[in-house]
Amino acid sequence: MRDFLPEDKRVRDAVLGKIRSTYAARGYQEIETPALEDLARLTSGQGGDNEKLAYRVMKRGAELDEALASSGELADLGLRYDLTVPLTRYYATNRSSLPTVFKAIQTGPVWRAERPQKGRYRQFVQCDIDIIGDSSLLAEIDLLSSSLAALSALGLSDAVIRVNHRALLVSLLDSLGVATADHGSAMITIDKLDKIGADGVAKELEERFGSSVGSAFATWIANVDVSVIPSELEEIFSVIDASRLKFDPTLVRGMGYYTGPIFEIEHPGSGSSIGGGGRYDGMVGKWLGQDVPAVGISLGFERVVDLVDAAALVDSSESVVLVLEGNVLSKAVEIRDSLIAQGYRVRFEARPKKLNNLLESMAANGFTHFAILDENTASLELRPIA
Amino acid sequence: MRDFLPEDKRVRDAVLGKIRSTYAARGYQEIETPALEDLARLTSGQGGDNEKLAYRVMKRGAELDEALASSGELADLGLRYDLTVPLTRYYATNRSSLPTVFKAIQTGPVWRAERPQKGRYRQFVQCDIDIIGDSSLLAEIDLLSSSLAALSALGLSDAVIRVNHRALLVSLLDSLGVATADHGSAMITIDKLDKIGADGVAKELEERFGSSVGSAFATWIANVDVSVIPSELEEIFSVIDASRLKFDPTLVRGMGYYTGPIFEIEHPGSGSSIGGGGRYDGMVGKWLGQDVPAVGISLGFERVVDLVDAAALVDSSESVVLVLEGNVLSKAVEIRDSLIAQGYRVRFEARPKKLNNLLESMAANGFTHFAILDENTASLELRPIA
Repeated sequence: MRDFLPEDKRVRDAVLGKIRSTYAARGYQEIETPALEDLARLTSGQGGDNEKLAYRVMKRGAELDEALASSGELADLGLRYDLTVPLTRYYATNRSSLPTVFKAIQTGPVWRAERPQKGRYRQFVQCDIDIIGDSSLLAEIDLLSSSLAALSALGLSDAVIRVNHRALLVSLLDSLGVATADHGSAMITIDKLDKIGADGVAKELEERFGSSVGSAFATWIANVDVSVIPSELEEIFSVIDASRLKFDPTLVRGMGYYTGPIFEIEHPGSGSSIGGGGRYDGMVGKWLGQDVPAVGISLGFERVVDLVDAAALVDSSESVVLVLEGNVLSKAVEIRDSLIAQGYRVRFEARPKKLNNLLESMAANGFTHFAILDENTASLELRPIA
Repeated sequence: MRDFLPEDKRVRDAVLGKIRSTYAARGYQEIETPALEDLARLTSGQGGDNEKLAYRVMKRGAELDEALASSGELADLGLRYDLTVPLTRYYATNRSSLPTVFKAIQTGPVWRAERPQKGRYRQFVQCDIDIIGDSSLLAEIDLLSSSLAALSALGLSDAVIRVNHRALLVSLLDSLGVATADHGSAMITIDKLDKIGADGVAKELEERFGSSVGSAFATWIANVDVSVIPSELEEIFSVIDASRLKFDPTLVRGMGYYTGPIFEIEHPGSGSSIGGGGRYDGMVGKWLGQDVPAVGISLGFERVVDLVDAAALVDSSESVVLVLEGNVLSKAVEIRDSLIAQGYRVRFEARPKKLNNLLESMAANGFTHFAILDENTASLELRPIA
């Protein structure tokens, strides 16, 4: 978990602001759910492997005493480890107050009890958009074009979204001769393509499902033509700028709940994916006892922040350090208000012994100008901090 | 803990945005600390009564097993219950990277395991500004004028800040004949003035500290002239708009750590205080082994949200529901981009059977216009949603 220094915080807020405003301009609506959810819900199987990483919050008072005495469950709440499980709960709770097709923006911290390692944090921010209640490809097209717009607004126009469809993966596995019961497990092997290459995948498939499956995969991948877009994805590729999409018939995405198109966002500046998502039609309905179509995409906020050109994003409005000397406070408050009305950021500082040290520190904190205000100042002179 | 519906979330974000930008314009810098802190720090005595309300997060794996086996402490982390304790820890950790006089903005959720009751939430937002490293009244004047500016920006120009000074309270208690060791306890009684009135306070002081203290208080409060500003506060009252400040010699503020001026914000629309703060010079230095002056003020975000005129604050930019009929998706994406470039919010909707139901729902969600796009549309007609 991290503290953010002021300059880092400014960049993070600027990035988050661009993402939120890009989505809001496309009619998505922001919602907010509590950080704590019932532990039972967080560990009900929707969250995949992340469920094990949920921080558990202890019961209190008499309930805790009772749990200790009976060796019962000591925790009743947990910190959310993603924004999808809370969204499905939110939708079930608030459905009657929401539009029939609900387009949600959720940004906020999630927590995972990961072992500390480089580039992994135990508190990090997710930025999700989801469309609930639309079973048509309009939803996918809306999500994909909006995500690409958000990335472009951040100067990341080189980002490309790889697209596949769970139904295509199922057909592929059938055609390779993998039994239906083994599909999930075979997908896990294919998902290793990035790491172990086509030969490695063919070898592992052979070891696990027989030599015919391994060789069928090797033949398939040597001959697959990714420029032929299958009918399931044709409409998406016909509408969205083709240079920003890539059909990838080997894309798996880890979560078991996907039921349709799946996405993963890549950028040449990042070694790993900077976002992803897909259609998960079965999941929301689980809490409602009826089918509710849903599709979502998540930007990996921490990776996006690492990629952006920070200087181009943060507020570059003029700023003034107003250095006060003597009995000038009333005048200073007046002058500050008038400079702020002109669009400046203005910070009061009492004149220190070493003015240069102050100005250096202020420059490092993003201030561009200074002015000295003493009892004799008739008109204020704004000077750039060298 | 609460879910926020889209329209509530918009108001909350608009309020938070105004507060943050008002403070940022005055040279305060935003920082962020993790939601989880070491439990030992959260329960070290800095947090007063709130320490008891900290949610405790369980240890995991071998550490948990060991704690269970040895009946040891089961939790090692806790959710922050305020933003002040994390700020003092942050300052101690990051001091070398911060300006000598550090002006911090912190906004974010805090958690308290309160019993559910009206108007109290277990997750709620705090908005603090603090100045660390300035022992002069310039800091108080900066904080107070900035808070008043934030409230005015929210349309709450009727807010008034009551001001007192801990040294004045100490002198008062001395003059009433309360022994130094009883000062803390006598302040708790005086703090009940709102609830039990001057007679009630006099009676309680009499019961607890003798009849001479009770009658001395009654005489004092009957004769005190609040229009005479004591020297300790004179500079503050000479600089800040006098209509927004009120000297209140009976103001106590609960926390034991205050050492100088103390503040409480009131507004005619709210039955209870909407914020407060004061100088706490001893607290930051505790982690550093040296004295560091500090002063802060906190806006009660949830109460402020209840007071603002929501309609006046939220983004009122024009918005369009683009109703799609037939094979028009490529055209729709183009039109959306061009409308967004003109400043509209634009939301795609497939044409439903009952257009009126859709438009009603969209109007309830803040959309002002609609347009129908079909294969024959030559030029788009934006119509207001009735």
